[in-house]
Amino acid sequence: MSVLVVGSVAFDSVETPFGAAEEVLGGSATYFAVAASYFTPVRLVGVVGEDFPQEHEALLRRHGVDTAGLARRPGRTFRWRGRYGYDLNEAHTLETQLGVFADFAPQLPPAYRTTPYVFLANIDPEVQLQVLEQVQAPRFVACDTMNFWIEGKREALLATLRRVDYLLLNEAEARALAQEPNTIRAGRRILQLGPRAVIIKRGEYGVLYLTPQSCFFAPAYPLEEVFDPTGAGDAFAGGFMGALARNGALDAAAIKRAILYGSAMASFNVEDFSLRRLTRLTPAEIEQRVAEFQRFVTIEEL
Amino acid sequence: MSVLVVGSVAFDSVETPFGAAEEVLGGSATYFAVAASYFTPVRLVGVVGEDFPQEHEALLRRHGVDTAGLARRPGRTFRWRGRYGYDLNEAHTLETQLGVFADFAPQLPPAYRTTPYVFLANIDPEVQLQVLEQVQAPRFVACDTMNFWIEGKREALLATLRRVDYLLLNEAEARALAQEPNTIRAGRRILQLGPRAVIIKRGEYGVLYLTPQSCFFAPAYPLEEVFDPTGAGDAFAGGFMGALARNGALDAAAIKRAILYGSAMASFNVEDFSLRRLTRLTPAEIEQRVAEFQRFVTIEEL
Repeated sequence: MSVLVVGSVAFDSVETPFGAAEEVLGGSATYFAVAASYFTPVRLVGVVGEDFPQEHEALLRRHGVDTAGLARRPGRTFRWRGRYGYDLNEAHTLETQLGVFADFAPQLPPAYRTTPYVFLANIDPEVQLQVLEQVQAPRFVACDTMNFWIEGKREALLATLRRVDYLLLNEAEARALAQEPNTIRAGRRILQLGPRAVIIKRGEYGVLYLTPQSCFFAPAYPLEEVFDPTGAGDAFAGGFMGALARNGALDAAAIKRAILYGSAMASFNVEDFSLRRLTRLTPAEIEQRVAEFQRFVTIEEL
Repeated sequence: MSVLVVGSVAFDSVETPFGAAEEVLGGSATYFAVAASYFTPVRLVGVVGEDFPQEHEALLRRHGVDTAGLARRPGRTFRWRGRYGYDLNEAHTLETQLGVFADFAPQLPPAYRTTPYVFLANIDPEVQLQVLEQVQAPRFVACDTMNFWIEGKREALLATLRRVDYLLLNEAEARALAQEPNTIRAGRRILQLGPRAVIIKRGEYGVLYLTPQSCFFAPAYPLEEVFDPTGAGDAFAGGFMGALARNGALDAAAIKRAILYGSAMASFNVEDFSLRRLTRLTPAEIEQRVAEFQRFVTIEEL
């Protein structure tokens, strides 16, 4: 089954302790779409400027991403410049140029409106709602968010949360949204805001999945080199939603297995700058890494 | 099989965001011994002053802890005063009064010398070595340490590490010992210093177990209330060593299972001040919590 993603398509300039990249392809929808493309057809909703090269769009198409929903508008593409220190869990934004993204009012192509799996990547919650208004009875909706919207557009975000099945966000964001320092209690409070489940991303400490009745932990991959964490959360979401859509089931085991696929895609993503690693994966590598994730928590090896 | 522990027996004064406790029973050997006592006989090596009440020693004995190695010396018992903020992973030491602990030169009772399982809790590595000199061909030796010794007695610590099977330490200590910010690489460097395996304690993020060939993760228990983290690492070590000694095996599955027992004991310990929770546990509660730990990482429920 297909997955629809709405989010940013951007040029990123990134510095980490291990190197730097200038004006490379980035954006939450881009990372999500390429990660999910290994599992299922992806429909992308976003906007770029006149400066967006054909080769980037061609890269998405090569991965089977439907770009009919990628609008091209007069002006410049969204740009983000950031830096990571040795604590790779925290990005320091140096500069944001919204460009054509400032007036982004997505119009879904008619063929997109019945997409069963919908991911609202980290964008203005009012735009997330606009997309939800245009899809018909989706089977499964998940969204991401960030501190900027939690602080600046809380009411709109709460309106979005009442309409999604799952919220994915990082640990600091979960604490900020719930206004609660204990992560577990923060997760429980978020479950009272609408979502049936919350997935809290903890960077190098893995992922915590909470529902009102259950709790599941997945570790992060034990990497000795984390080159660039940009897009890791979106790659996680892409692997998670893609694996869910491929599987078709939504029971607890399907969700947990999809979390391992998400963790695998995030772990690949941070091994290189931009989408370099995500764009040269093989299905066998992905399956092998998911199997490793299972071994990391297994007591009796078979 | 019996477990021997050498470490501190102390009076702790602790403040956390949730309350305070004054001059309560504490110390690394105390937490370890009570936690391990649920699994196996424990022999304790330590020193207290004339101010140490009989009731505390009686409490240890009630838990089957052999206190023949607990020396009583003229002077005052070791005292520690500390505070935790909302980040309960980090203790802020406000005051340390060594008292009789300053001249601690342990003499093992003859019956202790053939103890098969030995835990060198967090004390001066020279004292750890003195204890190792007095035990005969132990089956399994593990030790803990802290930044104070990593910075102040590095050579003695390295001498200890060459003689132990396992090192248990927290994540910040692992990075400091290895002089390496990446935790996985820090763990791999530590494995070159002597130990066959390292267990890195990550507080609310659980535990990472590394050998040259393998990697295992155990989550922390998802607690909504962490009352007092003091002693959590020692309770972990007590549960781990106790479960290992009870089982008798040292294969990978036995080690991983023992890690879950350690995690269970640490999770109980932080639910109340001092040893209040650890001293009123039932074996059924412990087994139930270990089963929960397994469910937290299980995809297909049986």
